[in-house]
Amino acid sequence: MQLLFASSNKNKIREVTQLLPEGFSLYGLQDIGIEEEIPEPGSTIKENSFLKANYVVEKLKKDGKKMVVFADDSGLEAEALDNAPGVYSARYAGVPKSDTANNEKLIKELSSQLNRKARFVTVITLISNGAICYFEGEVKGTISNTPRGNNGFGYDPLFVPEGYSKTFAEFTSEEKNAISHRGRAVQKLIEFLKSK
Amino acid sequence: MQLLFASSNKNKIREVTQLLPEGFSLYGLQDIGIEEEIPEPGSTIKENSFLKANYVVEKLKKDGKKMVVFADDSGLEAEALDNAPGVYSARYAGVPKSDTANNEKLIKELSSQLNRKARFVTVITLISNGAICYFEGEVKGTISNTPRGNNGFGYDPLFVPEGYSKTFAEFTSEEKNAISHRGRAVQKLIEFLKSK
Repeated sequence: MQLLFASSNKNKIREVTQLLPEGFSLYGLQDIGIEEEIPEPGSTIKENSFLKANYVVEKLKKDGKKMVVFADDSGLEAEALDNAPGVYSARYAGVPKSDTANNEKLIKELSSQLNRKARFVTVITLISNGAICYFEGEVKGTISNTPRGNNGFGYDPLFVPEGYSKTFAEFTSEEKNAISHRGRAVQKLIEFLKSK
Repeated sequence: MQLLFASSNKNKIREVTQLLPEGFSLYGLQDIGIEEEIPEPGSTIKENSFLKANYVVEKLKKDGKKMVVFADDSGLEAEALDNAPGVYSARYAGVPKSDTANNEKLIKELSSQLNRKARFVTVITLISNGAICYFEGEVKGTISNTPRGNNGFGYDPLFVPEGYSKTFAEFTSEEKNAISHRGRAVQKLIEFLKSK
C-alpha cells in the first residue's frame, strides 16, 4: 500500500518508514512535489492535524491522484495555563518561530504557578477510503523551572515525563520515541495499518 | 470479526447485518445487556456519534470486554436556519420527542424563507484498535411546505432530495437507503471494513 505522510521532515519520515510493516511504501510531501508550507488555521491540535491531511488529499484529487494520506500535529498543554500553549505551541512567543523564546515565555507564564502539570499530545489523522481516522498519543509530565539537556526540540528541555527526573532533552531519541506522545500515536497508527 | 452497533434499533441492525461481508458478526446493545438510553450531550452530530460509541467502549472496558464498536448520529440542517435543527433534530419541538411537532415547527420556522435548501447528514464513529474513525454521509435537498408520504420517519415527509420531486416519505425503504445520508455513511463503513 502506498502511504503519503503530509510532512517535509525527513527525520519523521525515516522514523515512520522504519516502523512500517512489509507491503507499505511511505512517501513525503517532497516526493509528490508539494513544497509550500501547509496552512494550519485550526483552533485545536486535532483540527490542524486533519486540515494538513485534508489539504494534501484535495491537492492530489485536483491532480487526479489518490493515496492514503496521514498527517500529525502536536502540542504542549500546561494545566495551570488552561492548556496553553496547545495549538499555538510552535509560535507561542510569536513569529518567526523560536524554541528558545517559546521556552522563556513558558517559564515566565508558569513562574507564579505551583501546578506544574502538563502533557504533550500528538494527533495523527489518516484519510483512507472514505474514512477519517484519528490516533492520539499523550505523555504526562511536569514543566521544569530551568531548561536542561541538548537533545530533541521544542519544549523538550523543560518537559520532565512522569516517572523520570530528567527532561526529554536529556533522553536519547530512541528512549524518547518509546514513551513520547508522537511515538505512541505512531505506534497506534502502525498497529492499525498492520491489522488492515 | 465481532462488531457492536451502539443502537437498540432492530431495523438499523438488520439493515447493516445484510450489508456486512462474510466473517463479520454484528451485535446490538441489547445483546450485551445495555438497556439504558445513551446520553447525547454533544453540541454537534459528530460529537454525539462519538460519545455514543465511546460510552459503549468504556462500559465494555469496565466489564473487561473489548469489541470493535460503532455508533451513528444523524440530523437535518436547513441553510436558512443557520443549520438548525442539526444536533437537535430529534427534539426540535421539545420533549417528549414528536415527529409531527418537529415537522410543524420546521414548516413554521421556514415559512418566511425563500431559501429552502437543506441537507441530511449522518456521522458514523467506529472505535477500533486505538483508532477513532469517522464516516460521513449526506444528501442534499429542499424542504417542502407541506408534508407528503407515509414511509420513513423524522423529517422525511418534508425532505425532497436533489434530483427528485417526491419526499423521502414517498420513497420505499430500499430506494431511500440507496441515496440517503445514513445509507451512504453505512456504505463507507462497509467498504472500509471490507478493506480490512
